[in-house]
Amino acid sequence: MKKVREVQSDQYLSSSELKSRIRDIPDFPVPGILYRDITPLLSDSRSFRSTIHCLANQFRDLPIDLIGAAEARGFLFAAPLAIELNVGLIPIRKPGKLPWKTLSYSYELEYGSNELHIHADAIPKGAKVLLLDDLLATGGTMEACAQLVEKAGGTVAACAFVIELCGLGGREKLKDYDVVSLLQY
Amino acid sequence: MKKVREVQSDQYLSSSELKSRIRDIPDFPVPGILYRDITPLLSDSRSFRSTIHCLANQFRDLPIDLIGAAEARGFLFAAPLAIELNVGLIPIRKPGKLPWKTLSYSYELEYGSNELHIHADAIPKGAKVLLLDDLLATGGTMEACAQLVEKAGGTVAACAFVIELCGLGGREKLKDYDVVSLLQY
Repeated sequence: MKKVREVQSDQYLSSSELKSRIRDIPDFPVPGILYRDITPLLSDSRSFRSTIHCLANQFRDLPIDLIGAAEARGFLFAAPLAIELNVGLIPIRKPGKLPWKTLSYSYELEYGSNELHIHADAIPKGAKVLLLDDLLATGGTMEACAQLVEKAGGTVAACAFVIELCGLGGREKLKDYDVVSLLQY
Repeated sequence: MKKVREVQSDQYLSSSELKSRIRDIPDFPVPGILYRDITPLLSDSRSFRSTIHCLANQFRDLPIDLIGAAEARGFLFAAPLAIELNVGLIPIRKPGKLPWKTLSYSYELEYGSNELHIHADAIPKGAKVLLLDDLLATGGTMEACAQLVEKAGGTVAACAFVIELCGLGGREKLKDYDVVSLLQY
């Protein structure tokens, strides 16, 4: 008898099937923004697992030493991807969250502004860091992460996203880096 | 030739080895608190992977439908554990972060107060939810998560932690639930 949790190789879903697990929510967090809600994708094990599998396939043969991700949604994909690729994870966090000496970077968001921190000793000199976030819009958060990785002594292997909102200038802002996304809108 | 990223079964670390990857930081976030910094554990792939493996071994044979976790540090362990156990993940978040209808719960923290939300439609009726967080101190955050799971129609399969700070009343606060921790201090 098969155990419920056993994984079949044909269990992985296609991009369009994954897209069907993203819920569109108009006017969140502010009027005029169509929010792409990833929680239905996360709560469905097959979709979540397929997402991590597809991401991993993009980077399996690249030399990557670490994965970096900004809280909080970035953690949801970066942590399993780090396990899958067998590399360590570097959390990039909001002010006051990292307990050791940090480097910081301030930037403007799509709606509001933000400041991110990385532990000053997080990255061995020259380490290749894959940066991952759930969503690419204007690219501000990812650019901040890339700046922090470089400030800390690493190099950016690539910038990866589960979702890319095309036409918001994100790729242009990240033109110095390889940009990979799984689902485009 | 072995690939660097290949995983050996003897690669998993013991509890005391994992503890050596937790950094003690005095007086963070406030004077008198000894903060257990998990970032060295996360950045070392062998330690991070061993942690997820040990957690998974605790729950592999339990009937679990979903894993729930509070942002942000809870996500770091809950997301790979969900992939490892092949179940979905339910993010429990701070106010204003979840875009759909939510249920909320307010509580007092070790230092300050907090309010957490869960999507009202996140949990199918009667689903068994394993709750996971990085650290058990007074148990306030986990109790909030458990209340939210039950409000949303689920049952709490167990409350799991990477680190337990013993003697702060966490287990007493969570006495209605099975509590499992990997590393005790």
